[in-house]
Amino acid sequence: MTTKLFISFLLCCFAITTFAQTLDEDSEIKYIKKMYDNILTEGPSYEWLRYLCKNAGGRLGGSPEYAAAVSFTSHMLDTIGADTVWTQPVEVPYWRRGDVEKAKIVNSKQLGTVDLAVVALGFSGGTDRLGITGEVIEVKNFDELEALGKDKVKGKIVFFNRPMEVTRLNTFHAYGAAVNQRTAGPRKASEMGAVGAIVRSMTVKYDNIPHSGVTSFNDATPIPAVGIGLQDADLLSDLIKKEAVAVNIQLSCKHMGNRIAHTVIGEIKGSEKPDEIILVGGHLDSWDIGEGAHDDGAGCVQAMEVLHVFKRMGIRPKHTIRCVLFANEENGLYGATEYAKQAKKKGEKHIAAIESDAGGHTPSGFRMDAASDIAKNSFNKVKTWRSIFASVGVWDIQAGGSAADISRLKDQGTVLFGYRPDSQRYFDYHHAATDVFENVHRRELLLGGGAMAALAYLIDKYGVK
Amino acid sequence: MTTKLFISFLLCCFAITTFAQTLDEDSEIKYIKKMYDNILTEGPSYEWLRYLCKNAGGRLGGSPEYAAAVSFTSHMLDTIGADTVWTQPVEVPYWRRGDVEKAKIVNSKQLGTVDLAVVALGFSGGTDRLGITGEVIEVKNFDELEALGKDKVKGKIVFFNRPMEVTRLNTFHAYGAAVNQRTAGPRKASEMGAVGAIVRSMTVKYDNIPHSGVTSFNDATPIPAVGIGLQDADLLSDLIKKEAVAVNIQLSCKHMGNRIAHTVIGEIKGSEKPDEIILVGGHLDSWDIGEGAHDDGAGCVQAMEVLHVFKRMGIRPKHTIRCVLFANEENGLYGATEYAKQAKKKGEKHIAAIESDAGGHTPSGFRMDAASDIAKNSFNKVKTWRSIFASVGVWDIQAGGSAADISRLKDQGTVLFGYRPDSQRYFDYHHAATDVFENVHRRELLLGGGAMAALAYLIDKYGVK
Repeated sequence: MTTKLFISFLLCCFAITTFAQTLDEDSEIKYIKKMYDNILTEGPSYEWLRYLCKNAGGRLGGSPEYAAAVSFTSHMLDTIGADTVWTQPVEVPYWRRGDVEKAKIVNSKQLGTVDLAVVALGFSGGTDRLGITGEVIEVKNFDELEALGKDKVKGKIVFFNRPMEVTRLNTFHAYGAAVNQRTAGPRKASEMGAVGAIVRSMTVKYDNIPHSGVTSFNDATPIPAVGIGLQDADLLSDLIKKEAVAVNIQLSCKHMGNRIAHTVIGEIKGSEKPDEIILVGGHLDSWDIGEGAHDDGAGCVQAMEVLHVFKRMGIRPKHTIRCVLFANEENGLYGATEYAKQAKKKGEKHIAAIESDAGGHTPSGFRMDAASDIAKNSFNKVKTWRSIFASVGVWDIQAGGSAADISRLKDQGTVLFGYRPDSQRYFDYHHAATDVFENVHRRELLLGGGAMAALAYLIDKYGVK
Repeated sequence: MTTKLFISFLLCCFAITTFAQTLDEDSEIKYIKKMYDNILTEGPSYEWLRYLCKNAGGRLGGSPEYAAAVSFTSHMLDTIGADTVWTQPVEVPYWRRGDVEKAKIVNSKQLGTVDLAVVALGFSGGTDRLGITGEVIEVKNFDELEALGKDKVKGKIVFFNRPMEVTRLNTFHAYGAAVNQRTAGPRKASEMGAVGAIVRSMTVKYDNIPHSGVTSFNDATPIPAVGIGLQDADLLSDLIKKEAVAVNIQLSCKHMGNRIAHTVIGEIKGSEKPDEIILVGGHLDSWDIGEGAHDDGAGCVQAMEVLHVFKRMGIRPKHTIRCVLFANEENGLYGATEYAKQAKKKGEKHIAAIESDAGGHTPSGFRMDAASDIAKNSFNKVKTWRSIFASVGVWDIQAGGSAADISRLKDQGTVLFGYRPDSQRYFDYHHAATDVFENVHRRELLLGGGAMAALAYLIDKYGVK
C-alpha cells in the first residue's frame, strides 16, 4: 500500500464515519417506517383510485373523461391541504375510438370467416362501413418489411408479429425491444402503400386480449391499424403459412382535431427553500379502453399520497413538494413538454422529480437519471440511502432511466427518479380493457406511495447532489 | 493503521481476488440466466399446478384428493426422468369437513338474525343438527381471556378478534403475531368451559372471506371452532358492544381417526457424491377449501421444476438432488417428522434443504437457518452469491428462519433455505376458498422455480459450508 493509498483509505473511513453521523441511518429507518405505517393505516390513495377509475374511467387527453379526472384530482389536492392548486392548459391532439372496431378473416379455405380480437391503435385511421380488405403479409421487423419492397406491400395489410421476449426478466425491457412495431410499424407500412396494419399485442401474458397504445403516422396516411390478441395473432400466422388470407378491418375511430387538456398541479410550499421544487408525479391521461388503473391512475394517486402523508404527519418540508399530474402522456407527452417549457420560462428550479408510471405493484426500486455534470454525485448520494430503502423492501436502486414525463426536465438540472415496482404483471393489463381498478392490489399500491414519500422526504432533508 | 491491520487489509484484498477466481461470478450469472430462460420458455410447472389444482383439488392428508395428488406427482417425477421415485407412508390424523358449516347471530334486537361468513377450523369439533348456541364474548389475546375467568367463559362462545397488523411490511410477520388465536385459542376456550370459538380470519385483505387452518385441542374437548370473515368479525364486534348477542354454530365436521398418507420423493443421483443430498421441496397436502394453489401446490411444482430443469439442460449434479413433497404439513407436520426420522435412521446426509412454502408470487429472496456450529460459515458462503442472485432480481437473502417441513432436518447438519416470494397477496388466499389456480401468476411461479434451481445449482457446484 502506498502512502497515498493509505491516506485514501483513512479518508474513506473518516468519510463513512462523518456521513453516518450526518445521516443518522437508524433514526431515518424508524421515521420512514412511521411514514409507511401512516400510509398503510390512513392512506386514501386506493379509494382515490377507485373513484378515478369508476367515475372518470378511461381518459384520453381532451376527452370528457379526462376533464372529469382533472376536476376530481384538483378537488382532492385542494381538499387534502395543498397550499396552492392550479391547472396548466395544453393543446393536445384528440382521437376518438367510436363504437366500431372489428377485424375478420374473410376468405380462408380452411376456416371460412374468423373474427379476430382487435382494438384500434391510437391515431389509427378509420374506415367506412365496409372497412378495408387486404391480403395479410407477416413481418417480424422493419428489415423484413423493407426487403419485401413496395410492390409486394402495396394494397396489403402488414402484420407485425414479433413477440415480446418472455425471457427478459424485466418485462419493460421486453416491451422496449418490441414496441417499435406498434409506434412506427403502421406508418412504415403506410409509406409503402399498405392499406392496413395489424400489430401483435405488447404483452407477455398468453391470452387473446388485444392491447392498444399510440401509433404515429407523421406525414404518412393514417391507415387502419389494430392491436391483435396473441392467440389470434398465432392463428393468423399459422394460417397465412398455408394459404393466402384476406382480412377485413372496420374502424369508426377518428382524429377530432386539437383540444385543450390540463395538467393538474398542487404543492406544499417549502419552509426554507420555497423556490426549489421536488416534483412527485404521474400522468393523468390513460387509454380509453379499461380504466387507466395501473397506467397511470396508480402513479397519480401515489403522488397525491406523498403530499397527503406530509400533511397528515405534519412534516414541514424545506423545499416545495409539488404534485404534478401530467396531461397527455399517452398521445405524445404534450403535457410534460408544456410543463418543462413553462418551468424554464418562469425560471423554476426543480431539484428532483420522482415519477410513478410503471404500475401499482409491489415496489422494487428506483431508476435515476440526470445531466452528466451532476449524475455521479447524485447517484453516490442516493446510494448512501440504500440500507434505509432495504429496510422497507426497496432493494433495487440503479442509475439509468427514469420516466417519460419527467425526462423533459433533464436539461434543467433536475435529478430524475423513475419509481419501479415489480414488472411481472404490468403488461397483462397495459393499454388493455383489463387495466381496471380490480386488478390493482391495495397494499401494493400503498407501499409504492410509501417508497415515493420516503424518497421525497430524504431528498428534502439531505439534498440530492 | 497498525502493521497488523495493514496485513489484514492486504489479506482481505487477496481473499476477495482469490475467491472471485474460484467463483467466476460473470460466467455463473450467464449460466443462471440460461436456467431462467429455459424455465420461462419450457418450464411445465404452471401446467402441473393446473392439473394438481383442478384434478386433485383441496387435499388434506389422508383424503382421496390427497391420494390423487400423490399419484399425479409420483407419475410426473417418474415421467420427467428422476432416477428413483418412491413414496414414504406416514400415519396422519384425518379430519373431514362435511357439508354443513354455518353460523348466525340469532337474537339481535337491532339486526334480528344475521348469517355470518365462517368456515370450520381444522380439528374443530362438530355439532348435531341444531348446533350449539352461546353468548359471544370478545377477547383480543389470551391475557384478556384468562382475566375473564372460568365463570364468565363457561357456556359462552369466545370470539378471538385480534387483527393481523397491516403495518407489518412482511405479512408473514403479521401472521406470526396473530395466529396463536387460531392454533391455541379454541383449546384455551374449551379448557375454560366455552361451548364454541370464533376466530378472526388470518388475513390483511379487508373482505368477508373466511380462512381456515389448523387448531389444536390436545386433551381438551374439541369444541366447534370457526374462522370468520373480517367484515363479519367487525360487525359482530360492533354489535356485542351494544347488546348481548348469541350465535348459533352448526358444523358437520368430524375427526375420522388415522389414515395413511404418503410423502412423495424423486431424485437425480449425484455423480460424485451420491450420498450427499440437496433437498428441494414443498408440502403436497393443503386445506380442503380452495385448491391448495399457493399453499403449497406452487412450492411442489417449483421443486419438481428444479429436477426437471436439471434434466432438460443436461446438468449432471455432483450431489443427489432430491425432490420431496411432504405429506400432512397443514395438520401437524407428520410427513416432515417421519421423513427426518427415517433420514436419521438410514444415516442419510442432507447437506442442504430448500423449501418453497410461502406462495407462488414474485421471488424476493431466501431465509437461511442451520445449527449454530455451521450457520456462520454457510451464511458467509451464500453471501458471496448475492450479486448472482441480484442479477435475477433476488435481492433479499438473510439469516434467520427457513420453512416448516425442512426445519425437522436442522439437527442433522443440514443448511436450511426457506424460499421467500413477495408476501403482499399471500394471506389474501391462504387457507381460503380463493386459494385457486387462477390466483397464481404464471411468470411469478416460474421465476420462483428459477430462484430455487439457481440455489440448488450453486450449492451443488460450490458447496454450502
